[in-house]
Amino acid sequence: MSERISRRKMFGLGAAGVAAAGAGVVAVRAGSGGAVATSASVAATSDAVPFYGEHQAGIVTPAQDRLHFVSFDVTTEKKAELAELLQEWTAAAARMTQGGEAGAFGAVGGIPEAPPDDTGEALGLPASGLTLTVGFGESLFDDRFGLAARRPAALAPLPKFPGDALLPEISGGDICVQACAHDPQVAVHAIRNLARIGFGRVSVRWSQLGFGRTSSTSRAQATPRNLMGFKDGTNNLKLEDAKLLREQLWVAPGDGQDWMAGGSYLVTRKIRMMIETWDRTSLLEQEQIFGRNKGEGAPLGKKAEFDPIDFVAKDAAGEPVVKADAHVRLAHPSSNGGAHLLRRGYNYVDGSDGLGRLDAGLFFMAYQRDPRRQFVPVQLSLARKDSLNEYIKHVSSGLFACPGGVKDAGDYWGRALFS
Amino acid sequence: MSERISRRKMFGLGAAGVAAAGAGVVAVRAGSGGAVATSASVAATSDAVPFYGEHQAGIVTPAQDRLHFVSFDVTTEKKAELAELLQEWTAAAARMTQGGEAGAFGAVGGIPEAPPDDTGEALGLPASGLTLTVGFGESLFDDRFGLAARRPAALAPLPKFPGDALLPEISGGDICVQACAHDPQVAVHAIRNLARIGFGRVSVRWSQLGFGRTSSTSRAQATPRNLMGFKDGTNNLKLEDAKLLREQLWVAPGDGQDWMAGGSYLVTRKIRMMIETWDRTSLLEQEQIFGRNKGEGAPLGKKAEFDPIDFVAKDAAGEPVVKADAHVRLAHPSSNGGAHLLRRGYNYVDGSDGLGRLDAGLFFMAYQRDPRRQFVPVQLSLARKDSLNEYIKHVSSGLFACPGGVKDAGDYWGRALFS
Repeated sequence: MSERISRRKMFGLGAAGVAAAGAGVVAVRAGSGGAVATSASVAATSDAVPFYGEHQAGIVTPAQDRLHFVSFDVTTEKKAELAELLQEWTAAAARMTQGGEAGAFGAVGGIPEAPPDDTGEALGLPASGLTLTVGFGESLFDDRFGLAARRPAALAPLPKFPGDALLPEISGGDICVQACAHDPQVAVHAIRNLARIGFGRVSVRWSQLGFGRTSSTSRAQATPRNLMGFKDGTNNLKLEDAKLLREQLWVAPGDGQDWMAGGSYLVTRKIRMMIETWDRTSLLEQEQIFGRNKGEGAPLGKKAEFDPIDFVAKDAAGEPVVKADAHVRLAHPSSNGGAHLLRRGYNYVDGSDGLGRLDAGLFFMAYQRDPRRQFVPVQLSLARKDSLNEYIKHVSSGLFACPGGVKDAGDYWGRALFS
Repeated sequence: MSERISRRKMFGLGAAGVAAAGAGVVAVRAGSGGAVATSASVAATSDAVPFYGEHQAGIVTPAQDRLHFVSFDVTTEKKAELAELLQEWTAAAARMTQGGEAGAFGAVGGIPEAPPDDTGEALGLPASGLTLTVGFGESLFDDRFGLAARRPAALAPLPKFPGDALLPEISGGDICVQACAHDPQVAVHAIRNLARIGFGRVSVRWSQLGFGRTSSTSRAQATPRNLMGFKDGTNNLKLEDAKLLREQLWVAPGDGQDWMAGGSYLVTRKIRMMIETWDRTSLLEQEQIFGRNKGEGAPLGKKAEFDPIDFVAKDAAGEPVVKADAHVRLAHPSSNGGAHLLRRGYNYVDGSDGLGRLDAGLFFMAYQRDPRRQFVPVQLSLARKDSLNEYIKHVSSGLFACPGGVKDAGDYWGRALFS
């Protein structure tokens, strides 16, 4: 009853089953992915994303549809135990991102009298584009592990922004892992198994599911919509922007702490939307707040989504067509000294709030080379002036230093920091 | 800036964009669905499910992958207003399930100075198999609307089961709507627009997202896995079981209240899993608790998932191979006077619980002809004896009378009850 089964093998059987029996949801996913890869830059949704590389996957990787994000508190006080955990996690991540199980013996191999080393809910599911991306929070560099001298200056705590309504219990954390995949069960499986492996050494501080990506990170992707109904991320930094990525996304060797070379800083903000209030706002006002029209996503006064925004144009009454407090104006690089962000957020609905309202909004995530010159000035400007603020509330915040990629099977998450 | 755009039209443009530009996630979904419909019984995941019919869709409809479930409290005290809302909802549901927008003018049509009559986040997305299924809770039959005499006897409040840890704020409710779709954004969009339309007349009491179906409702579907890693719903009642559906799923005209003919009773139970404890349990114990092996899902002592369970077989030590307190034994129709359920549950993860644990489990939903003869005896038996109880906790409960289908555009949800 405990023969060894790999997810790949299970999946192979599932796919064969289709030809024979005609159906099966697992197989539908695989077949679908294979059938529609009309562009080399868009992988099949069932495919695996390479785990090893110069940079971590899950940053410029074309944004997958689903998210499970987790922030851990480290509970061990021993640096060696933490480094050991990071090695175990890296091995598990390398397997799971390639469609394998978390441990060598999987959910049904190994010793029947021992707990399985995979929890099993992804058996039969393909890799589904899973990426796992790790980051280290500022709190990891306190006096527990002797890492204080290695804290990057760019990891300075974010300032308190006007209007912040942050809940400490869902903010911060020592270590984050971002799991993105085309199948939520695969993303959840990955985070759950990392938590399982970390038992006794880390503890889940907070965790967030997201169901619809709200940004494209590749020009091959259509721009998705946020829960205000607008296209989001039209002017996002994208993987095709090689020069901008070098300048604004990836930490360079001379930037400060060497262990961060090839890495990037991640800011997370859980932004609750006042959905019900927004839904009673006129179309005109909604479009003026964003500075784009709702149907096409074109800048006001323009026709197509990717038309450049005209910040100078005035209407018949002499008012700016794109208002001074419009979201697109305040967030635009031209208003922020050229600062870009690689956004990678997701829509969320966490049920309802007990007051008759949906608890919903945007789990904002943005990668960048230095938050002090990118997220912080942009958010200061938005927090002070954005007309959208009437409809949103920032309830959680995180800042994490995501190191460069894992080079090969001998490397591990954070090795340059821990060795 | 407010030209009228239908979701279908937007989607048509999106799909055309693929051929031209090579990619786009929206289009990938559509293409994928079309490419894999190898069996007439499995629709493309982008397709629409018919809204009108003898029974409501979303019950025997092959279970879609994603759920947004909502329970409303009625806040108006006027029966006529409630009946009017049900008519407005029905019209919106008929549109949205066919890939259209919630209202005639959509997200960007109509009067710019008025709020749009669709919130817009599903613009460009196909119907995605959306079904919307309505049910009426016992509380609707109190003295507010003069419906007390029309309360079906089968809608009697569920008994308190041993071990119940129900939270009243996420239990019960006057009206429920189950939205199932292959795309969570489409399911969320539907519920959000029904809540928007209901403003001033209903208020969201609780709402639940589910990301992975845990039962098949058709033999054309592969059996999915729950978050304990086991296949779930192998012996579920399925749409191909015509005789059993007549006997055990659909309310017959002579069953009591005529307005429920062609309908079914829905029980919801949010079942939190003690994920971390389960993950430290041996494979042997996990398999004994369920009575099936984990890899294949075969009954213990058998080889294949659909092999009949042998409740008599004993092992070398003279113990039953499938233990007396195994889940499959206690839940099986043969242990419950032949009672079947059509289960339609979903996995959920609601983040973490502040104690270092994932807040995750199963949102159980089951349809049946009469809960007094089906869910209640089965759950009494499980609550008393199931060895799984050590790892689960029921935290929410609901019971809803789901009327028969909407016949045509002149009919509406609950018309037989309100007229």
